[in-house]
Amino acid sequence: MVARPITLKTLLIHPSFMKRIGIADTTFARSDMARAAISAIKKEASVEIVRYTVPGIKDLPVAAKKLLEEKECDIVMALGMPGAATQDKMCAHEASLGLITAQLMTNKHIIEVFVHEDEAPDERTLGWLAEKRAAEHAQNAIRLLYYPEKLTRMAGTGQRQGYEDAGAIEGSGSGGHLGH
Amino acid sequence: MVARPITLKTLLIHPSFMKRIGIADTTFARSDMARAAISAIKKEASVEIVRYTVPGIKDLPVAAKKLLEEKECDIVMALGMPGAATQDKMCAHEASLGLITAQLMTNKHIIEVFVHEDEAPDERTLGWLAEKRAAEHAQNAIRLLYYPEKLTRMAGTGQRQGYEDAGAIEGSGSGGHLGH
Amino acid sequence: MVARPITLKTLLIHPSFMKRIGIADTTFARSDMARAAISAIKKEASVEIVRYTVPGIKDLPVAAKKLLEEKECDIVMALGMPGAATQDKMCAHEASLGLITAQLMTNKHIIEVFVHEDEAPDERTLGWLAEKRAAEHAQNAIRLLYYPEKLTRMAGTGQRQGYEDAGAIEGSGSGGHLGH
Amino acid sequence: MVARPITLKTLLIHPSFMKRIGIADTTFARSDMARAAISAIKKEASVEIVRYTVPGIKDLPVAAKKLLEEKECDIVMALGMPGAATQDKMCAHEASLGLITAQLMTNKHIIEVFVHEDEAPDERTLGWLAEKRAAEHAQNAIRLLYYPEKLTRMAGTGQRQGYEDAGAIEGSGSGGHLGH
Amino acid sequence: MVARPITLKTLLIHPSFMKRIGIADTTFARSDMARAAISAIKKEASVEIVRYTVPGIKDLPVAAKKLLEEKECDIVMALGMPGAATQDKMCAHEASLGLITAQLMTNKHIIEVFVHEDEAPDERTLGWLAEKRAAEHAQNAIRLLYYPEKLTRMAGTGQRQGYEDAGAIEGSGSGGHLGH
Repeated sequence: MVARPITLKTLLIHPSFMKRIGIADTTFARSDMARAAISAIKKEASVEIVRYTVPGIKDLPVAAKKLLEEKECDIVMALGMPGAATQDKMCAHEASLGLITAQLMTNKHIIEVFVHEDEAPDERTLGWLAEKRAAEHAQNAIRLLYYPEKLTRMAGTGQRQGYEDAGAIEGSGSGGHLGH
Repeated sequence: MVARPITLKTLLIHPSFMKRIGIADTTFARSDMARAAISAIKKEASVEIVRYTVPGIKDLPVAAKKLLEEKECDIVMALGMPGAATQDKMCAHEASLGLITAQLMTNKHIIEVFVHEDEAPDERTLGWLAEKRAAEHAQNAIRLLYYPEKLTRMAGTGQRQGYEDAGAIEGSGSGGHLGH
Repeated sequence: MVARPITLKTLLIHPSFMKRIGIADTTFARSDMARAAISAIKKEASVEIVRYTVPGIKDLPVAAKKLLEEKECDIVMALGMPGAATQDKMCAHEASLGLITAQLMTNKHIIEVFVHEDEAPDERTLGWLAEKRAAEHAQNAIRLLYYPEKLTRMAGTGQRQGYEDAGAIEGSGSGGHLGH
Repeated sequence: MVARPITLKTLLIHPSFMKRIGIADTTFARSDMARAAISAIKKEASVEIVRYTVPGIKDLPVAAKKLLEEKECDIVMALGMPGAATQDKMCAHEASLGLITAQLMTNKHIIEVFVHEDEAPDERTLGWLAEKRAAEHAQNAIRLLYYPEKLTRMAGTGQRQGYEDAGAIEGSGSGGHLGH
Repeated sequence: MVARPITLKTLLIHPSFMKRIGIADTTFARSDMARAAISAIKKEASVEIVRYTVPGIKDLPVAAKKLLEEKECDIVMALGMPGAATQDKMCAHEASLGLITAQLMTNKHIIEVFVHEDEAPDERTLGWLAEKRAAEHAQNAIRLLYYPEKLTRMAGTGQRQGYEDAGAIEGSGSGGHLGH
């Protein structure tokens, strides 16, 4: 048997050299946001994807931390769709705090992708929004991992994920500041 | 005396190989949610159950952590029934944050099963809801421990525990996204 | 001199074998809740009591942690009487979060006994409520230390500390669940 | 040269035996609360004082922790004057949580002395209140360090810092509890 | 070759002796606050600047912590522009708590520079405010690093970043306190 030569390319795409992205999602969400995220990731990069589904958004912080520590992911996307009721908003708040703490405990990013049920006027738009936001944040995950300089080029430009960007403030950076 | 042969099955059901589920509940709750949870667990799997009752929901975070660390449970269900007053809502919020922190400190899941007294129009429905939610979350605990792939198959399908499922958004995943 | 025989009883009541309960209270409270708590504890058990008074409820979390770690208490009761203003409610919320975190850092219980000034219609009832709640939670502290099985027997029975118990939901556990 | 005899008093006032109190304050506050605190401390005890000024109240938690850990202070007073707007209240809340966490991480007290701008009807009263509260909490710091038993004698007596004390509830402790 | 003599000045400006300031900013912001901050820093001191751009403000806490720990920055400025909606306010709150926790975990300062979209009546003023506040907080960062005594001289003088200073309360420190 002839040994295959190990080229640089072989090394770069070999699993042990590939970056690993964790996808934590929920059975509570009403749309398969993970599929949209995974599909967007695969268009952008050759990475290994580890998916971990939990019941609700309050289960996401430890799921994300387990993906980072036990599955050795380099970054995690935490996907959730909180309901519109006050109690659901509170759950989302608690989950967000947990996700921030999990990041501080691991020194790794967890991109929170939450779509609130009342962010869209109807179910169809909600589904579209959830998938669009997941896909656009998948690009952010790729940028954080591979192309941080791209994010810096976009700094202060009013990027939004899902609905259209707010854009940079007109005249921003022109130096024409108001007197005081 | 003849030595009993040790079969694979013997090993699997032997206590030292059994998973352990902690059940933390309160004397404050007005319904024995733990009984419903334990009953549901026993239908699904051969696991060891460790129960720990505390006065109120704010005592649940450390109780759950002690079950995970001192009683070596693999997962914990934290059962509580906060009242309807503003102050009770605040207690539930504080308890939830504590449960999330306890998970991040242990890298293990604590399934929060809270039933707010104002979630049901009358006591009878409240009792039914508490037991139903406890039982359905018991299934989630089993899935997290033994069948994580089942949860992934249910991802994004709008699962609810207690009242009926919200279901997946119609057309979700059909690819027929709105233009923008 | 004749050596006194060491009996089991001698051992059990000897300080080095006695459990230690910490009592953290405040100068802000308008009623000596600690006296009520200590009196109730002494009726129930032979324990060593360590008292630590701080200015306000936001000083209680570290006081409780110091009692657990530096004074080697087995459990702590944190007694406070927040005022009725919005700002006081916020202080109570912050203190509660700190007490939960302190428990998670030590794996020991801190029984929070807060009586809000607006929980009673007049000062006399407020004073009564504060002492009653402190005394009843002292019993919970004793149960957590010595008789955890008593708490489990009381699980889901709607226990309250101070005002009368809410009680278990009628029909709870009868199996006669509503259909859905 | 004749060696000075080392008396007990010399030892007690020698810097290496002196307690150290940290004073963390802000440029945001509109009154020099630190001066009032330091002046009150000096009337009460011979201690070393380390002052650390930061821009705003959200910078106080880490400033206090650095005073405790890097400057080896025994206790810290954190002085701030949050504004009256909703956003300012939120900042104060966040700072308070941070101060509590800092205490739990160090097992030392940080006395929070916040005066909200809307606590007084006019600027002059606000200035008076800020200095009065700082001075009275300076006494609490001294009590925590040197005379903890004084605080216990004041427990449950409705102490306030700045405006007049609320006092103990009349009849409290008289044993004349309401029936129920 | 003649060896260049190593003067004190050479040592002070040599990279390994230079302080390092981290700048964490977002693509969400609608103005390039980092440019304003960096420009202000360069006017004040010879420091090394490390910039790290993330998608939104909830990504700032871990970004700041990575700058402090992995890039060995001595201080970090965290720049963000939360929107005006309730949900955006909540995100800012969560981010602020994370930034405070990150500081407590590292014992280093993170200067939070948030400009809420509703702090200004129009976009032009918003852009001006964002850059002004970033520049003025850059001066605070420099003071914390090099001139802490300057901050103490400014203590209690009602400094604000962006809009004009509130100033010290008139008569503050005059000793003419209200009686009570």
